[in-house]
Amino acid sequence: MGSFQVRTDLALEARESVQDSSGQIRGVKYEEENNKNAGIHVTKVTIETKNGAKAMGKPMGIYITLEVPGLAEPDEGYHREVSEELAHQLQGIMPVMDKEMSVLVVGLGNRDVTADSLGPNVADNLFVNRHVLMEFGAAAYNKEKMHQISCIVPGVMAKTGMESAEIVKGVVEETKPDFVIAVDALAARSTRRLNRTIQLSTAGIHPGSGVGNHRNALTQESLGIPVLAVGVPTVVDAATIVGDALEKLEAECDLTIMAGREHPQAISELNNMYVTGKDIDETVKRLGYTISEAINIALEEIE
Amino acid sequence: MGSFQVRTDLALEARESVQDSSGQIRGVKYEEENNKNAGIHVTKVTIETKNGAKAMGKPMGIYITLEVPGLAEPDEGYHREVSEELAHQLQGIMPVMDKEMSVLVVGLGNRDVTADSLGPNVADNLFVNRHVLMEFGAAAYNKEKMHQISCIVPGVMAKTGMESAEIVKGVVEETKPDFVIAVDALAARSTRRLNRTIQLSTAGIHPGSGVGNHRNALTQESLGIPVLAVGVPTVVDAATIVGDALEKLEAECDLTIMAGREHPQAISELNNMYVTGKDIDETVKRLGYTISEAINIALEEIE
Amino acid sequence: MGSFQVRTDLALEARESVQDSSGQIRGVKYEEENNKNAGIHVTKVTIETKNGAKAMGKPMGIYITLEVPGLAEPDEGYHREVSEELAHQLQGIMPVMDKEMSVLVVGLGNRDVTADSLGPNVADNLFVNRHVLMEFGAAAYNKEKMHQISCIVPGVMAKTGMESAEIVKGVVEETKPDFVIAVDALAARSTRRLNRTIQLSTAGIHPGSGVGNHRNALTQESLGIPVLAVGVPTVVDAATIVGDALEKLEAECDLTIMAGREHPQAISELNNMYVTGKDIDETVKRLGYTISEAINIALEEIE
Amino acid sequence: MGSFQVRTDLALEARESVQDSSGQIRGVKYEEENNKNAGIHVTKVTIETKNGAKAMGKPMGIYITLEVPGLAEPDEGYHREVSEELAHQLQGIMPVMDKEMSVLVVGLGNRDVTADSLGPNVADNLFVNRHVLMEFGAAAYNKEKMHQISCIVPGVMAKTGMESAEIVKGVVEETKPDFVIAVDALAARSTRRLNRTIQLSTAGIHPGSGVGNHRNALTQESLGIPVLAVGVPTVVDAATIVGDALEKLEAECDLTIMAGREHPQAISELNNMYVTGKDIDETVKRLGYTISEAINIALEEIE
Repeated sequence: MGSFQVRTDLALEARESVQDSSGQIRGVKYEEENNKNAGIHVTKVTIETKNGAKAMGKPMGIYITLEVPGLAEPDEGYHREVSEELAHQLQGIMPVMDKEMSVLVVGLGNRDVTADSLGPNVADNLFVNRHVLMEFGAAAYNKEKMHQISCIVPGVMAKTGMESAEIVKGVVEETKPDFVIAVDALAARSTRRLNRTIQLSTAGIHPGSGVGNHRNALTQESLGIPVLAVGVPTVVDAATIVGDALEKLEAECDLTIMAGREHPQAISELNNMYVTGKDIDETVKRLGYTISEAINIALEEIE
Repeated sequence: MGSFQVRTDLALEARESVQDSSGQIRGVKYEEENNKNAGIHVTKVTIETKNGAKAMGKPMGIYITLEVPGLAEPDEGYHREVSEELAHQLQGIMPVMDKEMSVLVVGLGNRDVTADSLGPNVADNLFVNRHVLMEFGAAAYNKEKMHQISCIVPGVMAKTGMESAEIVKGVVEETKPDFVIAVDALAARSTRRLNRTIQLSTAGIHPGSGVGNHRNALTQESLGIPVLAVGVPTVVDAATIVGDALEKLEAECDLTIMAGREHPQAISELNNMYVTGKDIDETVKRLGYTISEAINIALEEIE
Repeated sequence: MGSFQVRTDLALEARESVQDSSGQIRGVKYEEENNKNAGIHVTKVTIETKNGAKAMGKPMGIYITLEVPGLAEPDEGYHREVSEELAHQLQGIMPVMDKEMSVLVVGLGNRDVTADSLGPNVADNLFVNRHVLMEFGAAAYNKEKMHQISCIVPGVMAKTGMESAEIVKGVVEETKPDFVIAVDALAARSTRRLNRTIQLSTAGIHPGSGVGNHRNALTQESLGIPVLAVGVPTVVDAATIVGDALEKLEAECDLTIMAGREHPQAISELNNMYVTGKDIDETVKRLGYTISEAINIALEEIE
Repeated sequence: MGSFQVRTDLALEARESVQDSSGQIRGVKYEEENNKNAGIHVTKVTIETKNGAKAMGKPMGIYITLEVPGLAEPDEGYHREVSEELAHQLQGIMPVMDKEMSVLVVGLGNRDVTADSLGPNVADNLFVNRHVLMEFGAAAYNKEKMHQISCIVPGVMAKTGMESAEIVKGVVEETKPDFVIAVDALAARSTRRLNRTIQLSTAGIHPGSGVGNHRNALTQESLGIPVLAVGVPTVVDAATIVGDALEKLEAECDLTIMAGREHPQAISELNNMYVTGKDIDETVKRLGYTISEAINIALEEIE
């Protein structure tokens, strides 16, 4: 059933799809660790070569995945322990921060489409200080040094007539941040990962990724500065769900139902449909808060 | 695959599931018509007997379905032609309106869960006049007679601690309307019907129906006055989608894959997941406006 | 300038307007205390007689005012110390709670008019449990006894065609709570009190009070059970502001400018205008959270 | 009472404040016309010299004011006749549009502060096409030529850490529009003008103007392309209201109360307070729609 095109923004899932029986993919490194206190499972996939990138269908870079079973459920508060682990992992892939740096956070996606509103939700909660630091310096916060944080929600092409990438590029050129953190809602392949997996990456945002399907890249290559991407899968393409169910069924029943066949009509009808949880409205808000806190924590101190 | 429990709030789909090769179900009458001008296909299913109700898994009553292929797409405005046909069909099942009547419109569902917010959206656009008529009479609108319209959005149990049915019952007893029109988001079995099918019914709202799964009924029996239900399917249960795809595949491949088997894990993982369109946020608003206008038109004139 | 009709929902301000030089009003008792830890100034006005009520222009009952200078400003969080003092004062005027009681919280006002949305904001954050307790008992929360909490947002007459009082009366008769806590946005006379004063009262809600001007009362007399009112002034009538400024000016300049005169046109133009703070959108959300937490705390334990 | 600093963003009001008994101000031209069909009063103030600018406290440029008594009230629809007159006036001050031009509409202000959300509301309704034209050309709309329209909502400094001007400048440099139309909520001096006056100007947006008080300018000088400003006053500073009432009172009573005095405390307490209408939430949405339609109409055809 290799002809069935599954879509996932998670490197972890891409790896599961392509690995051979030995569990190895050339040019792709894989490491695991557990944060036992917080019940968070951390996986690091590093795509080191062009061949690895081709095999995975993802650009070269580091992809860190935090799997948090309880994240999809409400918490007293907003899962501070997750924010802290996420901040820790984020610091591991940020540029060296031993002097005052300037960071632009980009909240991608569509504020008016719930499953696509993770980026704008993060922006709503973020602590920004660039305007204060530029006018009054760190003294305004009783500190000697502080990283500068600014934030933009570029909006979606159907409302702006511009690529998010054009807007961000213009803002980067005008305000000269040292690097970008771009937040976006992702598509997963498995419903088990919905709303409970956070992916960090040094590879930026690529055409066709995210719930909203950007055309242009937000990467170090396109912007001239490092771009870290943070995302959570909030949807699964409905066609992917059915395709995967059929594939498992073939395996279970030892059949080769779909080989060389067109997809059943039931699948092609699912075009533009997605699967999501019933509490997505509330979940996206909570995830946005958890991620904005993580970014706040990661940028709080100068090393 | 009869063991696979599909869920649909549409009598039309229930009938498709249970009809035999003759296309007949005892105790269930079926009629079709087309509104050629507006491209609307109207179907009327009447469940006339208890046996018919048992076969259909739906209570006795009239179920009218308007299928409007273009309804899921944006329009210059809000599809007034659909509002007019819906008003016409609504008038056909309303009590005799030859004197001033009082109508309570109930917007069921959860304002904060997009796919479940059809009822509150209808309420937001509805023309209400009961308070004006009670203080100033129809003269306030330069008319001699007018139907009284009031409206309540009871909210959901998780936010109120009360059944919608309890709240509506209290309001009905206090304000004594002649009948109720209850609007709710529905679940369909097929994605083809999502956001483009409107169902009217004299059977009211029943436990387990709607996107939000009410526990208590809103019916003539429970409220003491007629209850007309208006609904649009905004979601399909994800498990239903996969189940249906498998069923079609069995037919296409002439197999009996699932007979006597447990559902593949891929299906049970889909619990609490639903499938919906990518533009559901905008679609629900537009549908709400179309239905509120239909109710406004249906109640505008005294016969 | 006694002919200038000032409007305030705060008993504290009404008392300031009518007291004579001795500071005494017959039939009205006045007490003050300070919660030094939290910087909250608490005032208790008790209108004990019909004469007192007439003098004050407010019905008989207890009116407790919490003045919190910092409340209008954002806080790390939501001013938990205010929630705790408010819970403490609320417990002082609630019925004896030594057995399981059932409480209906009513969120008055208009969700879509920022300055009038305090009630709906409180409802959004409230912990409700009546539906769980009725189905599973207190065991669902690992407790032996719990107070039952339910909540309704009746909406405004222009959207429902019904008085809030009609809806609440119906719900009270259907669900039989032991008492009601009604939350509403208030009008103050002085901008100094905007968003930083909370008034509790045993007198319920009266026609003409609140930002939205209810016509019917929500009182023990109308509902048959005690009604506690909780409110925060979010607006000052613009005409009141100007009138007060003129009055002070007369005093400062030792003039009698307006005696026996019509109001200057500048005042009559202010009809339907109100004065509010620039950050009212954010402030109302924060106040709503603080009050909902206070109600949660006040109802948490059985004495 | 010249010491009392009144604030208005309307050139019309500035002129009223400074004109002498002859009604003339040097370097300032004044013209009036009426659109009798639509009941719209149009005024054109042209500040032609630096002296005129100094006298008026506004930069040189053309300021056109549309006064529409009915604009503050709801309409069947959204006042299309106003959109058409506004489009006509806008075309009068736009650059020559005889070839395909590219226009960037900027929605200034804060989406989350009702009285400041006019710009974002206009952006929500605007027809944008730049992304379609760049990929498919005018043929996508069955036309030969079309103006390119893009749109940005820069957000407010407290949320972005950047000046709106920085963001717009970056976007202008990246996407190279021919001119900018900037929409913003304004402050008026008189409540009579609230929500019923629209001002167009060739002078752009200046520090300290708008409800949200920008620090940096959006002008031809700062951006390198023409900047047309469109605004509606949605608030009056509360201190201005009281100051104006006192001034009128002085005139009526033939007194000189405030000469050389500090403002009464009643005025200084009004700092950061503003006066607005009770239906501001709904009004801003309607105004946003009316203005977005005007921009759509003005840019529809190539001359």
